[in-house]
Amino acid sequence: MNIVLLEPEQIAGSDAWKIKSPRQLQHLRQHLDLKIGDTLKVGIRQGARYLSEVLEISEQCILVKPVQLETVPEKLPVHLILALPRPKVLRRIIMDAVTIGVERISLIHSYRVDKSYWQTPFLQQLDDYVTLGLEQAGDTIAPEIQLYKRFKPFVEDVLPTWINAERPAYVAHPYAEQHMPYAIQQGCSLIVGPEGGFIPYEVDLLKKNGCQAMSIGNRILRTETAVSNILGRLFV
Amino acid sequence: MNIVLLEPEQIAGSDAWKIKSPRQLQHLRQHLDLKIGDTLKVGIRQGARYLSEVLEISEQCILVKPVQLETVPEKLPVHLILALPRPKVLRRIIMDAVTIGVERISLIHSYRVDKSYWQTPFLQQLDDYVTLGLEQAGDTIAPEIQLYKRFKPFVEDVLPTWINAERPAYVAHPYAEQHMPYAIQQGCSLIVGPEGGFIPYEVDLLKKNGCQAMSIGNRILRTETAVSNILGRLFV
Repeated sequence: MNIVLLEPEQIAGSDAWKIKSPRQLQHLRQHLDLKIGDTLKVGIRQGARYLSEVLEISEQCILVKPVQLETVPEKLPVHLILALPRPKVLRRIIMDAVTIGVERISLIHSYRVDKSYWQTPFLQQLDDYVTLGLEQAGDTIAPEIQLYKRFKPFVEDVLPTWINAERPAYVAHPYAEQHMPYAIQQGCSLIVGPEGGFIPYEVDLLKKNGCQAMSIGNRILRTETAVSNILGRLFV
Repeated sequence: MNIVLLEPEQIAGSDAWKIKSPRQLQHLRQHLDLKIGDTLKVGIRQGARYLSEVLEISEQCILVKPVQLETVPEKLPVHLILALPRPKVLRRIIMDAVTIGVERISLIHSYRVDKSYWQTPFLQQLDDYVTLGLEQAGDTIAPEIQLYKRFKPFVEDVLPTWINAERPAYVAHPYAEQHMPYAIQQGCSLIVGPEGGFIPYEVDLLKKNGCQAMSIGNRILRTETAVSNILGRLFV
């Protein structure tokens, strides 16, 4: 946690803000030996980020006062389109994508996505994963997350509206001939399949609808590793 | 698991090889609907990689015969030097580094590494994590892993012997002025600190001993995310 993220309601109408979330208080107690007068980075969800000063510390609350405006890190101009990961992996992959700074996330179905994944209670906790990612990054602006439970309508009807010459869509695909570009100067969509990969029919349908299949070499990475690895190479 | 890794002893003196590890058998049963005559990728630890044919399937064993030599993926010319991660993270980070293809790993102490981490039983399982990484990557060659429990002697006496003009050492450091290079054409050492980062004294000591501190932007990534992200950018 590199900033403490507060909700707009929490700060309304006051110059001193209360940190009351048990999760945040526990983290601060465990990792920072805060004393009155110390500084602490705080951010307002969908708003600004501040250096604040600690005014009071109690069991239930830490009271801080903003003292200096700080810069919110910029997003990467990338829309991450991800086959819905296993519930166990979902938390880390959303958190990491948010931390790295993707501006938008779409979770889609695919042949190798177990249908039960769409029923997981973890999908109700996406907002929490986003919060963790923002707090790790020192960011305040949550990316939009959309769910598409049907692959074909998504690829044929939705995806093409996001693709144009200035905004290509790259599918990470181990067996593609072209190599994933690096240090790109424009925005893009990045499409990453499930563990086990997209099936050939899916890769073909993606290509037919404007996507470019791109290889990142002959080592096959786990999905979450691939996302971080490819984003590192696309935006240097 | 993208190849089944066999030990040299398992294949000695026979043209047909037995897959008997419960972990491997369970994975194959769960993810591949293998039938006699199907092909399966197998690798010999520290040796070659083959396409094999399935000869027999039983509860305790799958018997395969190598039919075609395959190429083992090349390593990246990078020595990853990592502050010993939390036990919970150790498995994934070693597995991922091996999957991505680092040629050597050193785990080192640092001020923000809890001393108890050096006592974790997980450190006895490094070989297993390496195996998982190799099987994910389709690789057979295990990188060397070394442990250095004292930071200063390591940085002053060991690290400088690895650094020269053709083989620089980069410390990932959020507050460095220079940017981590990308698409490099030479080998390097990459040094990644613990969660919370190296303390200023450590960064200074690393710099004094030949390392270059390099930033990857103003978002602070979790260690495991940073490793994948930076390797993606260094070697494109």
